Amino acid sequence: MRIALGLEYCGTSFTGWQTQPDGRGVQDALERALAAIAAADIGTIAAGRTDAGVHATMQVVHFETGVTRPDSAWVRGVNANLPATVAVLWARPVADDFHARYAALRRHYTYLLSGRAVRPALLAGRVGWYHRALDPALMSEAAGALVGTHDFSAFRAAECQAKSPMRTLSTASVTLTGEHLRFDFSANAFLQHMIRNIVGALVYVGAGKHPPAWIGELLAGRDRRRAAPTFAPDGLHFTGVEYDAGWELPPTIRPVVLPLA
Amino acid sequence: MRIALGLEYCGTSFTGWQTQPDGRGVQDALERALAAIAAADIGTIAAGRTDAGVHATMQVVHFETGVTRPDSAWVRGVNANLPATVAVLWARPVADDFHARYAALRRHYTYLLSGRAVRPALLAGRVGWYHRALDPALMSEAAGALVGTHDFSAFRAAECQAKSPMRTLSTASVTLTGEHLRFDFSANAFLQHMIRNIVGALVYVGAGKHPPAWIGELLAGRDRRRAAPTFAPDGLHFTGVEYDAGWELPPTIRPVVLPLA
Repeated sequence: MRIALGLEYCGTSFTGWQTQPDGRGVQDALERALAAIAAADIGTIAAGRTDAGVHATMQVVHFETGVTRPDSAWVRGVNANLPATVAVLWARPVADDFHARYAALRRHYTYLLSGRAVRPALLAGRVGWYHRALDPALMSEAAGALVGTHDFSAFRAAECQAKSPMRTLSTASVTLTGEHLRFDFSANAFLQHMIRNIVGALVYVGAGKHPPAWIGELLAGRDRRRAAPTFAPDGLHFTGVEYDAGWELPPTIRPVVLPLA
Repeated sequence: MRIALGLEYCGTSFTGWQTQPDGRGVQDALERALAAIAAADIGTIAAGRTDAGVHATMQVVHFETGVTRPDSAWVRGVNANLPATVAVLWARPVADDFHARYAALRRHYTYLLSGRAVRPALLAGRVGWYHRALDPALMSEAAGALVGTHDFSAFRAAECQAKSPMRTLSTASVTLTGEHLRFDFSANAFLQHMIRNIVGALVYVGAGKHPPAWIGELLAGRDRRRAAPTFAPDGLHFTGVEYDAGWELPPTIRPVVLPLA
């Protein structure tokens, strides 16, 4: 039987989604908790492999199991075996050909950035920080150049293993809410470090180091070395995945509502 | 010279505001950082002695020092010596008779409570949790009975060292925002565990264990043993202090804006 899960986590104390030899991936924590309920090893596949320090309001996961448990065991039972910063939000049996990663039509991410003079303390690890005033209008204009189907090589990590650098970005917006900047990105899929690299470049534009048109030049240049440094993972939240309605899943998208004023 | 500071912290990894022999109080962290800047020991006094796990969007502190430093050293310099979850928001020289605790006219606290079926993971330690549906209208009605000047013995920790159990509560409200309940309390001062004990009692009312009028009966009975258990510190935020405008302080109040939907 194939089961799908919706998962929430704070990425601060993890090495990222993916299983690691030291067992500090979110996947390791989840697979240990699933094994405790199933009394058997369970391997999981997630919609998005988030980096170390990246959070999820909604990660979608599937796994195969021969054991039969009520849906509540895959939620409450697994949660009783997970660390405090990871929780299963829902669990549901799905068709055998559902695949959390390959069936995903679109992924959504939100980056939260504090622009205040003093570094965030209450929200340390939860929001990124840039200590200088940033111009959201310039950043918003620059972000517009990213929408569409492009070769995103300029924003791709050297170690990225994707076969193609082409991605279709349907949303790239920057809005100011209170003392925080909020970046929203939606795409069919993202390259490794793509959002953090884009945020780094948009921050350079917002700080006046480059004009908004620089983003289009970076895209066209397809050279990672000409872009800005990869921005911190702290403020990045995976906020969900779109699937065909035919899979009959519970909600797979869960927007971030901005914290503190 | 006397200096006042505005301080923000996440209480999760601290034993509370107050200095402890093991050095894990927020006060210990702050005094170590101040000593690094002053090259001399500095003792601090805070407006409110928050419990272990309680956060502050705005704690107000004062200290005496013989050394002269620019205000920026008491902010950026001290922050460079503080853990990531504590930050000085502002620093300002004040009159020698200013006292962060005794000059406080009113304190403000906000408690955030998640009412969803699954425990909070992304906001673990940041919001309290009750796993059953709560009726905010009943809780709001019950909270109203607390406003005014009362003997709050029913909501006072056994080890509370205050001379009098009389306090004047000017605000006690419960509102529902998205999936969170928000409790706002303002008073001239609070007894030890007073807010967590009140939240525990209001949760009993919201869960239908007692009618709203029970809160008035508890107050009148002045018996801690008849009230509800002390609620978890996780969602409690100290949000600031009112002082006479004559002290000419920077902003000493900083409301919480509710996290995640």
